[in-house]
Amino acid sequence: MAESWSFLDTFEPNFRPLVVIELAKGTKEETIEWFTKRIVDKKANGGAQLLVKPLVMENGGEHIYLVGASTLRLLLGAETVGLVKECNDNSMRTFTYSSRKTFKDFADDNPNFLTMAECQYIIKHELENLRAKDEKMIPGYPQAKLYPGKSIVRRLLTSGILVQIFPLHDREELKKLCHTWYGRVKVDYQPLDEIRGYFGETIALYFGFLEYFTFALVPMAVIGIPYYVFAWEDYDKYVVFATFNLCWSTMILEFWKRLCATMTYRWGTLLMKRQFEEPRPGFHGVLGINPVTGREEPVYSSIKRQLRIYLVSLPFVCLCLYFSLYVMMIYFGLEQWALDYHEVNESNFSSLMLFVPSVIYAVVIEIMNRIYRYAAEFLTSWENHRLESSYQNHLILKVLVFNFLNCFASLFYIAFVLFDMKLLRQSLATLLITSQILNQFAESLLPYWLQKRYKKKMKKRICSLKTDTDLSLVEQVSLEKEMGTYVGTFDDYLELFLQFGYVSLFSCVYPLAAVFAVLNNITEMYSDALKMCRVYKRPFAEPTANIGVWQLAFETMSVISVVTNCILIGMSPQVNALFADSKTDLILTVALIEHLLLALKFIMAFIIPDKPRHIQMQLAKLEFESLEALKQQVRAGDMYNSEK
Amino acid sequence: MAESWSFLDTFEPNFRPLVVIELAKGTKEETIEWFTKRIVDKKANGGAQLLVKPLVMENGGEHIYLVGASTLRLLLGAETVGLVKECNDNSMRTFTYSSRKTFKDFADDNPNFLTMAECQYIIKHELENLRAKDEKMIPGYPQAKLYPGKSIVRRLLTSGILVQIFPLHDREELKKLCHTWYGRVKVDYQPLDEIRGYFGETIALYFGFLEYFTFALVPMAVIGIPYYVFAWEDYDKYVVFATFNLCWSTMILEFWKRLCATMTYRWGTLLMKRQFEEPRPGFHGVLGINPVTGREEPVYSSIKRQLRIYLVSLPFVCLCLYFSLYVMMIYFGLEQWALDYHEVNESNFSSLMLFVPSVIYAVVIEIMNRIYRYAAEFLTSWENHRLESSYQNHLILKVLVFNFLNCFASLFYIAFVLFDMKLLRQSLATLLITSQILNQFAESLLPYWLQKRYKKKMKKRICSLKTDTDLSLVEQVSLEKEMGTYVGTFDDYLELFLQFGYVSLFSCVYPLAAVFAVLNNITEMYSDALKMCRVYKRPFAEPTANIGVWQLAFETMSVISVVTNCILIGMSPQVNALFADSKTDLILTVALIEHLLLALKFIMAFIIPDKPRHIQMQLAKLEFESLEALKQQVRAGDMYNSEK
Repeated sequence: MAESWSFLDTFEPNFRPLVVIELAKGTKEETIEWFTKRIVDKKANGGAQLLVKPLVMENGGEHIYLVGASTLRLLLGAETVGLVKECNDNSMRTFTYSSRKTFKDFADDNPNFLTMAECQYIIKHELENLRAKDEKMIPGYPQAKLYPGKSIVRRLLTSGILVQIFPLHDREELKKLCHTWYGRVKVDYQPLDEIRGYFGETIALYFGFLEYFTFALVPMAVIGIPYYVFAWEDYDKYVVFATFNLCWSTMILEFWKRLCATMTYRWGTLLMKRQFEEPRPGFHGVLGINPVTGREEPVYSSIKRQLRIYLVSLPFVCLCLYFSLYVMMIYFGLEQWALDYHEVNESNFSSLMLFVPSVIYAVVIEIMNRIYRYAAEFLTSWENHRLESSYQNHLILKVLVFNFLNCFASLFYIAFVLFDMKLLRQSLATLLITSQILNQFAESLLPYWLQKRYKKKMKKRICSLKTDTDLSLVEQVSLEKEMGTYVGTFDDYLELFLQFGYVSLFSCVYPLAAVFAVLNNITEMYSDALKMCRVYKRPFAEPTANIGVWQLAFETMSVISVVTNCILIGMSPQVNALFADSKTDLILTVALIEHLLLALKFIMAFIIPDKPRHIQMQLAKLEFESLEALKQQVRAGDMYNSEK
Repeated sequence: MAESWSFLDTFEPNFRPLVVIELAKGTKEETIEWFTKRIVDKKANGGAQLLVKPLVMENGGEHIYLVGASTLRLLLGAETVGLVKECNDNSMRTFTYSSRKTFKDFADDNPNFLTMAECQYIIKHELENLRAKDEKMIPGYPQAKLYPGKSIVRRLLTSGILVQIFPLHDREELKKLCHTWYGRVKVDYQPLDEIRGYFGETIALYFGFLEYFTFALVPMAVIGIPYYVFAWEDYDKYVVFATFNLCWSTMILEFWKRLCATMTYRWGTLLMKRQFEEPRPGFHGVLGINPVTGREEPVYSSIKRQLRIYLVSLPFVCLCLYFSLYVMMIYFGLEQWALDYHEVNESNFSSLMLFVPSVIYAVVIEIMNRIYRYAAEFLTSWENHRLESSYQNHLILKVLVFNFLNCFASLFYIAFVLFDMKLLRQSLATLLITSQILNQFAESLLPYWLQKRYKKKMKKRICSLKTDTDLSLVEQVSLEKEMGTYVGTFDDYLELFLQFGYVSLFSCVYPLAAVFAVLNNITEMYSDALKMCRVYKRPFAEPTANIGVWQLAFETMSVISVVTNCILIGMSPQVNALFADSKTDLILTVALIEHLLLALKFIMAFIIPDKPRHIQMQLAKLEFESLEALKQQVRAGDMYNSEK
């Protein structure tokens, strides 16, 4: 293997490749030289002080570089990014190089003190913080302007010189992880700590949420089954089921916060300080002074952005919503037609035909969701948000509103305009199941199959060049660089969010929804694990302390579901029979119960603490210590001054 | 004047008395000696390094001490408590002694860099943080136990040796403040910055809120007047009024947050770091180890506290609520009796009698509120909360629930059980006006009159001893120490909260309520100002960044008012006439509108940022700077390590 390497820098004996940099074909020599020099240069000279080795590929022309770092460099980097690790006394503390001996498992010869995901995150952070000094442009590319403080990697990315940066898989670790995760048939929790060690906190938290959510759905599924089996249609049973559901959904969301805090405390991200956010790569504007940092950087008028949002994006979203409703009306036309057809010529075929409109509609919904997603991404990116977080929030808002309407509008229409509970149940089942099948297929199985085919082709090609059957580093890199890029947990959370909607919004009409959701989530866990390990490039670890805006989205859904369920119960013939003499009383009672339930929800959310007691204690302890340290400092100053 | 002083310590030439300490009559000499020694002792020896001078009173026997501090000591103390002051570049920064030159208005010879309120706050903080070292008890009082780390002042207070600690008024400053505040007839904003400089942030924020709230009520009052004058009873006008009210009340609460942030940013408290909270003085328990601090201090089992809360306090509160409802039913009996009486013998007297039950009920409500208040304080203190904040939260919750029910139950009953809008209007008016008159009287005028009488008596007595007409320091202290103690803004906020309830809950029935509220608040501003300046002892300044739990209380009230107003409009005969053919449609429409309004409220609260843009910018700037400083530090370490 060694002969395929050219040695630029050999002062580190055991170079461990962590991150791959792919430059575009035909990148100028001077650019490469400048860029690699900046990466290896000393910190004091404005470099990143990392190690770089070029990787010579078989077909040549491609510029692939492997980036690594010395152990000392990584430890200092861990201090820079503010990693929080466990100490010998089991408390969690921000890592500093000078206090390294107090941390658990730290030893000068232990390379596993930092997980590989952490090392890769540090390298990514260091690369992204490689900033232009006095360069006015990227050497060799006069059109790629630079200014002091601009991130070099971001400019290289936006000008197309840098094709991609991605972390390498660790084939040994991956094999082990795959085995414990989904490789063997067992009934067990997911190995969340191992997932976190390999893929980072954001992804581990998603799998944690998926697992938690699935477990949380089990009681609803268990209670739901007898409703289906015995065809219980008594209103009192429905009321019981719906009430249970409502309290349950509030509780699970509250308890998730606690579980999440427990996990992220253990992982150290709960205590990690937020880093200052740099402009996102796509952000552009005229050069000006940032009022916060005082640095020269592109600025873009907030009024212009507001105009774009309110005059273009908002009307576009409304148009899409209108279009979605229009498609819904077509669906109802089709549905009516199928019903008529079934009535005229009754046959097995015609009764099968009854399901066709729903299935078609479900497919159309999925397609529309996906198309809209691209449009929303384009629009949000065109709105030119300065920060990634603001970009994400606007994107999520756009996508959520549309997907909510697109998926649930027909159900609302059936329930509250047509008052057809049978059709509601049928539509709900069809939509839920079809979307689950489509999602599983489009998300994991299709990419997996494509990836497998490609891998075989590659292997054949490589095998024709070499006789060695074990994949070398070159082969590994050339395989991985062609893999798809995992774009984040957005789609996965969105899927869960919509599923939560199907389960909770109309739960008292179709108690079986929870059963399907549980079944789907179990396979989802496996297919998502497969996707992470086999289909996509390894993603960079992203430290996070919670599931962010999704918590709010799920909570909003659970508030809406209180309203819908109360109305559904009020509409049921059994309840109507109970209030036969006065419909007014019925409505007033339902409204009263709804308000009480909503009040109960808010009170519960208020009373249940967001963090378990032992974590609150730990946080209080840390705060106390830092205040004490400050006081000591002041007191030392005091004495100094009073002795003067 | 000088001859009435005995000089314990004369190394500071210009001793400025800031805080008064009153010890019980007959306190043992050794205790006094030990206590004063601890106060003047060097920081390094565990003292507070303050200045103390005994004040010899005419009648002897009383132990009064004046506490002051050198300028240097106060500046160091400002650093300890973490004061935030304005810098020369107009940014707000945490004060440190070493960076003192960069602060605005700082000069070695400027004694006004710290306001007198700040100096007094610092002294209070230093006194309270005077902790026992190896004393096992207070010298001379074997029963008053001490343990290492226990606050000496708190133990002295609980064992009755220390009668009180209070800050001295500055007669010059007070005169100036009184003049600009309420001394001249003018239409102007209150001098909030001056109030803050003299009384501290908590009180300034209350007056700021009172003023803001009054201004915010003006539009409602202005719109409400024509409804009364022209006796508009059309439902559409009521709908317009109610809708305006709902949006308005949401907006004013949101915008208050912004205004509050602006003010507290200017005052520096928005940026002030929270201090670690010590146990409140009344907290007791067996000596144990605090798991957070690791220090020996009394601990009290949380389970015991929970038992006390749920087995004693909760049933007691429920009983009080029941009693309050019982009294309400008696009131309705009286009301009925008065009506019957009026019908039988119609006369001027009998029509006057119609108002008597309401007035009596209003007086009874006030009395019950006050009695309950004592009971709630006793119970909450008996629950033995460790922290003052937790004590306050439990107290506020208890008081709010009872006062809400006590004040509004009869109105709810009249509105939604009796459906008597005329009676509702009459009751509302009587309750509102009576409670306002009673409050003004009991809160300010009565204490002012008592205080004035006492002052005259004192003056006479003093004049008989001396011929000097100008009050000396001795006289000032002996006057002030007998003044009442201002117990905090709780009652003042509570009054505003209930007023907000009267105005908003049934606003569409009695639009004139806002007018009375505005009138009341204008006089309230003056009487509260009078109370602060003339009636009570000067309170210690208490830094705060917001109005705390009251924001939540007001927001909850505004949510409830959406519900009540929607129902009231739905019940109005005009709206009923509109939906003559179907009562069901009416209720559904009202419910729909109510849900839309609630949704709108939450969306508005979500969209309107809690801090104005320029403050967000300033905060981002500070955060950026601290992150940069951290980075520089790490980088310096980096270089050091890489050069090794």
